[in-house]
Amino acid sequence: MKICIIGSAGHTNYVLDGVRRDKDSRIVGIAAGIQGEGIDKLTEQIGELGEKPAVFDDYREMLEQLQPDVVAVASHFYQQASITLEVLKRGINVFVEKPVATNLSELASVKRFYQQSNLHLAAMFGIRYKPWFMTAWKLVQQGGVGKVRLMNAQKSYKLGSRPEFYKKRETYGGTIPWVGSHAVDWLHWFSGERFETVYAAHSSQYNQGHGELEVSALLHFRLTNGVMGSVNIDYLRPDTAGSHGDDRIRVAGTEGVIEVCDERVFLINSKKKGVQEVSLENSEGIFLDFLRQVRGKGKCLVSAEDSFYITEVCLKARVAADENRIVML
Amino acid sequence: MKICIIGSAGHTNYVLDGVRRDKDSRIVGIAAGIQGEGIDKLTEQIGELGEKPAVFDDYREMLEQLQPDVVAVASHFYQQASITLEVLKRGINVFVEKPVATNLSELASVKRFYQQSNLHLAAMFGIRYKPWFMTAWKLVQQGGVGKVRLMNAQKSYKLGSRPEFYKKRETYGGTIPWVGSHAVDWLHWFSGERFETVYAAHSSQYNQGHGELEVSALLHFRLTNGVMGSVNIDYLRPDTAGSHGDDRIRVAGTEGVIEVCDERVFLINSKKKGVQEVSLENSEGIFLDFLRQVRGKGKCLVSAEDSFYITEVCLKARVAADENRIVML
Repeated sequence: MKICIIGSAGHTNYVLDGVRRDKDSRIVGIAAGIQGEGIDKLTEQIGELGEKPAVFDDYREMLEQLQPDVVAVASHFYQQASITLEVLKRGINVFVEKPVATNLSELASVKRFYQQSNLHLAAMFGIRYKPWFMTAWKLVQQGGVGKVRLMNAQKSYKLGSRPEFYKKRETYGGTIPWVGSHAVDWLHWFSGERFETVYAAHSSQYNQGHGELEVSALLHFRLTNGVMGSVNIDYLRPDTAGSHGDDRIRVAGTEGVIEVCDERVFLINSKKKGVQEVSLENSEGIFLDFLRQVRGKGKCLVSAEDSFYITEVCLKARVAADENRIVML
Repeated sequence: MKICIIGSAGHTNYVLDGVRRDKDSRIVGIAAGIQGEGIDKLTEQIGELGEKPAVFDDYREMLEQLQPDVVAVASHFYQQASITLEVLKRGINVFVEKPVATNLSELASVKRFYQQSNLHLAAMFGIRYKPWFMTAWKLVQQGGVGKVRLMNAQKSYKLGSRPEFYKKRETYGGTIPWVGSHAVDWLHWFSGERFETVYAAHSSQYNQGHGELEVSALLHFRLTNGVMGSVNIDYLRPDTAGSHGDDRIRVAGTEGVIEVCDERVFLINSKKKGVQEVSLENSEGIFLDFLRQVRGKGKCLVSAEDSFYITEVCLKARVAADENRIVML
């Protein structure tokens, strides 16, 4: 399996982790997604894996010369959709950073092209595979909390000092799609429900010189069957915190409540008195799951449909926040 | 200080706790708020305090005969406003169960009458005085998290088997005002901001035969200065949980994040590395604080203005949920 990587701004670590575990795949080429996107550090990390990818100035040239089986796209976020289209047009499968696009028209173009092809596509909703989320999700699928009724998800990050392209909506896409999309994905993934309406707010106040970047956001979803979900997002996590991020979900159902917090899983249901801490299951990670699908040996847990759907919902949530209105989904 | 109690459906324990600590106040009378409201258990509890209140069939008769200084009103929720009006009209101070009213027109009547009087009124937002909430609030007031930006509050209760009047909107008032009002109060109290808009959802599905009672609800607030807040409310807490309720708040600010969870307080800010558990401060509770105000010796932390304001916001949040629309505040 020949793999190329375009760009180094996103979660290329998913690809590196996958290739490290899979003796039948090779990273054969790497290129920037746009001029000036530094890829030296990524090239070095790939080298440490024992891989010797060819480095290209122009990713189109790379695609044509190397004819890879899979391309990972992880460039500046506003470039994702156009690069993805270029890859798909050459008949190559895509593993793409989320959100798939930073505006609805580009999303529609990618989706249309994908649907007319026989190619595979998945967005990097890799947090699903973190043992704590995977364990909680499996428990919910097995009925551990009965029917899901109310969900609250959280993404909280340290802000630090972000690259220039984060500082403009046009190049960054917004905090709801970039950070929030993971949590929006969990709401759909845990409950199996579809989103009906979204209302939202976001604010770039107190963003420490980060231009238009929103540092707080709050989303309110009505889902099918009277289910509700919120997502709170912030870049307010203090530098002194023990980890970069504080990802959480609480799912309250008719038969119990489950929570992911601090990379642990806590369950209360009728089976036992009090809070049970659930032991975690390991998983192979998103990229191996996607490669398995490309090889025709299974279905990746993150489908192309979900990748498009969550991107669309997040872009519409951004509209709700910008325009202070309810958006129908 | 002569105290009477009308009704036994609400949090009369605040009054009993206060009287137990205050040698200068006596519970002199007790009456049902409406016919058929059992007050035997409450009478017994008061007896255990060494008090011997007169028991009346008609609370109006009690007010006229005993001329109390303060009346606690805690009857079936739809009766709160009309009983409160009767008490105020007799020139007596009122300590009333929240919400102050279950509809906006009755709220306006009580508010109007109160404003024309020189009387004292506070609603039973007594959770403010729980050591974990009081400690966290004081820290936030002292700048422990910088400027408040994003808040998420939770009320989660066991459903159990509720009395008949909980099963109709008309007599219960709804889960947003009844359970949610505490958490709505915290958002205003912690941040000092005013509410600008509310969007909400609630559902009575899977309420185990409780008629119209909503067992899940989700509120989304925009507050002044770009601050945001959510409240999630449910009656989905399993019977096997270690306590009746699971009250929480998370407040993220420009300089730190504070959380109340499990009756404990956790802080992350620049002062120390990692999560600090904050030691709790005791407080005397809401009723003593109110009595102090009645005696002219201070201001109760729960003002009449806050009591009316939070009731109004909750009743409008209920409209937002019922009508699936944003309500301006």
